[in-house]
Order: sequence, then C-alpha cells, then structure tokens
Amino acid sequence: MTVSIDGQRLWSSLMSMAEIGPTANGGSCRLALTGEDAAGRRLLLDWCEALGCTLRVDRVGNLFIRRAGRRDDLAPVATGSHLDTQPKGGRFDGILGVLAGLEVFRALEDQGLVTERPLELVVWTNEEGSRFAPAMVASGTYAGVFSVDDTLSRRDADGVTLGEALEACGYAGELPVGEPRLDGFFELHIEQGPVLEDAGESIGVVTGVQGMRWFDVTLEGQSAHAGPTPMRLRHDALAAAAHLIDRLQAHALADAGGDTKVTFGCLEIDSPSRNVIPGEVRLTVDLRHVVEAELDALQALFERELAAAGETFGVAVSQQRIWASPVVAFAPECIEAVEAGARAQGVPYRRMMSGAGHDAVYVSRVAPTSMIFVPCRDGISHNEAEYASPEHCALGAQVLCDALLGRANRPA
Amino acid sequence: MTVSIDGQRLWSSLMSMAEIGPTANGGSCRLALTGEDAAGRRLLLDWCEALGCTLRVDRVGNLFIRRAGRRDDLAPVATGSHLDTQPKGGRFDGILGVLAGLEVFRALEDQGLVTERPLELVVWTNEEGSRFAPAMVASGTYAGVFSVDDTLSRRDADGVTLGEALEACGYAGELPVGEPRLDGFFELHIEQGPVLEDAGESIGVVTGVQGMRWFDVTLEGQSAHAGPTPMRLRHDALAAAAHLIDRLQAHALADAGGDTKVTFGCLEIDSPSRNVIPGEVRLTVDLRHVVEAELDALQALFERELAAAGETFGVAVSQQRIWASPVVAFAPECIEAVEAGARAQGVPYRRMMSGAGHDAVYVSRVAPTSMIFVPCRDGISHNEAEYASPEHCALGAQVLCDALLGRANRPA
Repeated sequence: MTVSIDGQRLWSSLMSMAEIGPTANGGSCRLALTGEDAAGRRLLLDWCEALGCTLRVDRVGNLFIRRAGRRDDLAPVATGSHLDTQPKGGRFDGILGVLAGLEVFRALEDQGLVTERPLELVVWTNEEGSRFAPAMVASGTYAGVFSVDDTLSRRDADGVTLGEALEACGYAGELPVGEPRLDGFFELHIEQGPVLEDAGESIGVVTGVQGMRWFDVTLEGQSAHAGPTPMRLRHDALAAAAHLIDRLQAHALADAGGDTKVTFGCLEIDSPSRNVIPGEVRLTVDLRHVVEAELDALQALFERELAAAGETFGVAVSQQRIWASPVVAFAPECIEAVEAGARAQGVPYRRMMSGAGHDAVYVSRVAPTSMIFVPCRDGISHNEAEYASPEHCALGAQVLCDALLGRANRPA
Repeated sequence: MTVSIDGQRLWSSLMSMAEIGPTANGGSCRLALTGEDAAGRRLLLDWCEALGCTLRVDRVGNLFIRRAGRRDDLAPVATGSHLDTQPKGGRFDGILGVLAGLEVFRALEDQGLVTERPLELVVWTNEEGSRFAPAMVASGTYAGVFSVDDTLSRRDADGVTLGEALEACGYAGELPVGEPRLDGFFELHIEQGPVLEDAGESIGVVTGVQGMRWFDVTLEGQSAHAGPTPMRLRHDALAAAAHLIDRLQAHALADAGGDTKVTFGCLEIDSPSRNVIPGEVRLTVDLRHVVEAELDALQALFERELAAAGETFGVAVSQQRIWASPVVAFAPECIEAVEAGARAQGVPYRRMMSGAGHDAVYVSRVAPTSMIFVPCRDGISHNEAEYASPEHCALGAQVLCDALLGRANRPA
C-alpha cells in the first residue's frame, strides 16, 4: 500500500490550528484544557469527523480518534502527540505530530484505502506541563506511571484541578485510562535541537531517549570583604562553583561522540555585592547521557569534582538528586520501520537519541514505539520563533505514513 | 615623653559610644548626620571639652578637636577616623580610631603633659557611604578630590542633601575645607580582614593601600534546551564565565606573595532555568594589587582570559572598567613611627597594605600619613558581630600614642 501525503494540505492545517490562541509574534498560546486548547481540539475533531472517524476520550482527557481497519478485532497502530502549547509557544511542537496523523487519515481517505489494523490518532492531554505539572502527565498516566486520581487532582497556579479543568472544557471522558492497548506508536516531532539542521539532514530516526538526572547543589563558604581578605584565607563559594562547572564542561566537551551533556542552568549568589566574596552559591546541574552506565559514571564524576572543588576552595558542599529519568530504548522493529521510510525518501537522515522528553517516552513502556524528528530552525522551540519548513513537515509526515501503514498492514 | 594609655578607659568609651544607636544584635546604627550620629558626636565633644580642647567644624562637617601644644604656630599632628556606621554596623569600625585619639588626650592630661606641636583629633563626616555616596566623601573633599559644592549637594535615598543634613543636625561649620593643614596624620583602625588574626600578630603597620579596578562584564551566548543541544553546538554564557573565573582564581592563588586579588562578587544569568543553557550572563570583577604595574598586568591578563573564554565557548564578550583606584604609598617617616611603636610593645606585628579604603587614604594626598591596624575577630566588619579585643584596642591605642607623640615632639 503506497500512499502519498499532501504536504500543502498539512501546512494549511498547521496554519489554521495556529489561528487558535495566536500570540503577538506569530506563535500560539493554548495552555492545556483552557478554552483555546478546547477550541484546538474541536477543530481537529471537526476535521476527523468529516473523515468518518470515531472518538473516545479517556478519564484524563486523552483523545483516541479511530480510523477503522479491516480487522477491528486487532489492536490499533497509533500516532499522535499534543495540541497544548507553552504560554509563548510555537506552531509546530506537538501540533505537527497530531496534524501529520490527520494528514495520513486524509490521504488514505482520498485514495479509498483501508488498513488491516485500525489506526488511532491520539492527542495527549497537558504535554507541556505549563499549566499542570509535571509535563507529559496524561501519557504517563496512560502508561501507568501516575495514578488517575493523582493526575486528576493536580492543580494549576490558580488552584484549579486537572479534573475540574477537564469538566469545564468538556473533555472528561469515560474510557478507562490505559485503553485502548496499542499495537504500536509512532510520534512525529520537531527535533527541538540543532543537530539535523547543522548536519544538513532531513529526518531523525529516533532510537530512544537519553537518560537525565537533576541535582540541586549548595556551596557554603564565608562572605568577606574583597579588599582585605587574602586569596589563601578565602572561602569563595563562587570560585568553587566555577571550578566545578569548568571541570565538567571540559569533561563533556572531551567526549568526541557527543553523548555526554552537562548543563548548569541556574546559579544564584546569596546577597551578592561587587566587593564581597560570595559566601553562598546555589546552582542546578543537569546531566544527560545515552547509556545508563555512562550516566552513572558521569554522576560519580560530578560528585567527585564537587567534593574536590569544595576542598580546594574551603567550601562546604552538598547536593541532592531531585529527578532521574532513565535511558529509554525504543522498539527495534519500530525504529526499522521509520528508517525504512526515511531511506525510501532518499534524503539524508540519521539515527539519533532524543534529548527532550516526549509522550512517546511514556508510551514506549506499554507499546512498541519510535519517533521521527524533522529539523527546526536554529534548534529553537518553546518560542514564538519556532519554525519547521513545509518541506520538512511533509517529509516527516510521509515517513510517518509509511511507518504506520507498514505496521498496520503487516501479517497478523 | 612616655605616656601610657588606659586600656580599660578606652574600652569603656567604646562601650558607651555603642549605646547610641544600638541594634538588636549588639551592633550600632549611626548613619551619617542623623540624630544618632549627632548624639555620638555630642558625647565625644562633651568628653573633649572636659579636657579643655577646642572645636572647629569645617563646611562639610568634619570635626577638628585641638589639644594645644607649646608651639601653636606649628601645624598640628592629627589622628582620627569616623563615628558613623553602616545600618547594621559594629562597635569598632571608625569608632576605635576616634576614641583612641580621645584616650591619648586623656592620658596626656592625666600626666599633665603638653606636646611641642598641637594635636588634632579629627572626625570625618560620612565615611561609610551608607547614607550619602560615595564613601569617604568628606575626607576626600578635605583632600581636594571632591568640590565642596558637589559634596554638599549629594543626596540620600530620601532626597535630603548632605548640606541640609548638616544644617539639621547642627554640624554645618564655617572652617574652610582643607584647613587646618596637618603636619601628619595617623589613623588606627580594625583590620577588616583576617591576616593578623590568622598569623597571630597584634599590630599591622600599614604602608599604603592596594590599587583596585572594577569591571562590569557581559557574556552573550545563545540560550537553548539542555537536552537536544550537543555540547559542541552550544553557546553557553555561564560556561564561559566559569572558565574565566576559574582561570583568574588559579592565577591569583599561584601568587605566593599573596599580593594579587581577584573577586567576582556578582553573577547573574538572564532568565535562568534548570534545563536551559544560559544565554546571557553579567558579572562583576574586582582586581587588586599592591603594585600599580602588576595591576596593569593583571588587567591585561583578565582581558586576554575573557577574550579566550569567549572564543572557546562561542560567546560574545564585553567589559567596561567602571572604577579605578591607584596604589597609594604612605609616608616612610610615618610608617617608621608606627613600626617603632609596635616594636616597643614587643608584640608580633607586620608591615602590610590596606585592602580597604579609609579616610587616611585621601588625607595621605595632602599630609604625611600612616595607619595602624589591630586584628578583628574572623576578619568580620560591617556587621553587628564585629569585634576587637580590649587588649588589641589598647595595644593599637598605645602604638598610636607613641607615633603621635614622637612626631609632635620632634625638633621643628
């Protein structure tokens, strides 16, 4: 079964969706389960109903939009992503994955084709985490990571629970969370990084997600006047922090394969003053690697370097690991289906690990899964300036289409 | 002429003065030219008038309290410091220098002695700079660094000028600023650093003040998601800043003589977030050295290291020098007078440069000057916990007494 998607129609869907919750600088604001998010869902459902699809909504508001197959007794092959955005989000993050699924349905409809297994287009609730923490809470609930009750009782900044928001916007469904079981899941997404663009490649065949660990670090020295305090008698918390940062940066940059990532996103000096030696510094550490054992080693190195920096500068150090996300490997047969699709397009592509979290990461716990990345300009996302070209969106949707059909039509 | 000061009486004066403007945790709050500062001055003047001293007040409120000599046609030998404090200041910073001068007058009176040259006890207005910026504005005006009109028109946070505050508290004097010319000036002060305490020494013979240069630095990279952005494609402003800090720290620590000081007191990341690579960092740099040419070399090194850090991390860097204070050398004959006094006490002492600014630094432009330091606990000052022991205060006052008498009694 060969089906060509219509890149122009896909682009037009993307631009129409962006008209809901538009922001001043060309982005979108559809926070989860707000009126804007509901309007975005409504637009999608209108389009899908026109194709004869059927809708089920689960108890945490995930939408399952089914296109019937020949064998509706078999588990569906699914695709999808999310329609909610950051407060100043772009037009592509999540949305491309949903509307590419719609485009596959439309292309099948154009050609009057029916797959063996049913297809399911999924819209996951509250992926961004901007309104209700944490991110990806509803796909995580689907995968059994969070309980339904916990998820429904998550509150936004105004104290509104996710359950109340679902009722208010009309998406509190009846389908038990975890249904339907999926035969497989493919998610198309913008890369949200610069790797494909930098390499001149059009498709990322995503083989998994790098592991990640977050730490809060405190360095306590002694604040003192810069003038009268000799270097050797100082307890400079910032000097110790800078030493730690510099050592770990050098370590990560020395990894020629580029699989080691260290980021210090926040650094705060207590009561800073130009001529006072910093007495206390708090900073955050984000460590990532594509191999779990290497991530263990990276954490051990961080702990050693932190202790050494404290000793060198006479500063008391402490750290707390506040989050850990293991390395995830996607299903080989799904990865191969995506790779075959990329190869068929004759464009440069690469196998790569995702650096960011996605709904597919949770879904991969309960169904064979892979992802498809397309380049985004300058690697920018979560930003009104986020952009993916029509050509790359179309290429991604075509690879998605091939992967979906291949899996949906394989022998039972 | 040998005169012994009374350490117990000096301590008692210090504790009495601390009762004016007391703070919750045992410190003092006498912001310049407030009711508290005026009350402190009044207490001192009551004590001095009981000794038969005469008062002149100059146009910026500096007090000149004279004890007559045999040769009142000769320029006076002076001592003094300041009575104003930080908002949560201690009992010693400035105050010790004033009340030690009082104690010298009292000891002379006890023994019925008169010096050849007159002695002058000086209280400089607004040393701390907490109420009116900059610090040491009135001794700077005395030395010709600031004009009288400029100084009188400095405003506090409420818009009150220094001139108005002088009128309000009754210390707007008639004496032309710059008078009287001094034959010499000695200032006793707590060290405000940890060097003497650390070395177990009781007296610092201050030979001058280290030079100082202040810079504002901006590093502009590119913020991006920590997860999907490879290390080699990052433009991490914090990584560049940390590299700069670490390099300069290492350089300063490698100076075995301890004359090189580098301090990064403030560092701020623009829109920090745990999993976002810092796009912009602003930091402050404070460079100090006791030799002007070495300070030039240190600045050049800083500029090279900043450029190199920018290049290494793909970050645009810029810096602005916002303040420079040259190395100051005190008068050899005054330094020797202090050193002789320290030696006579038979206590461990050292020659040292001051790391902080003092009224004596400005006065040294127009009169032969030196300073005497005594240890303060843990090097802490500008803090309610500031403390110097009665023994060290007495030792410092005795060395001051010897230096003053030696100079006041030398042949004309």
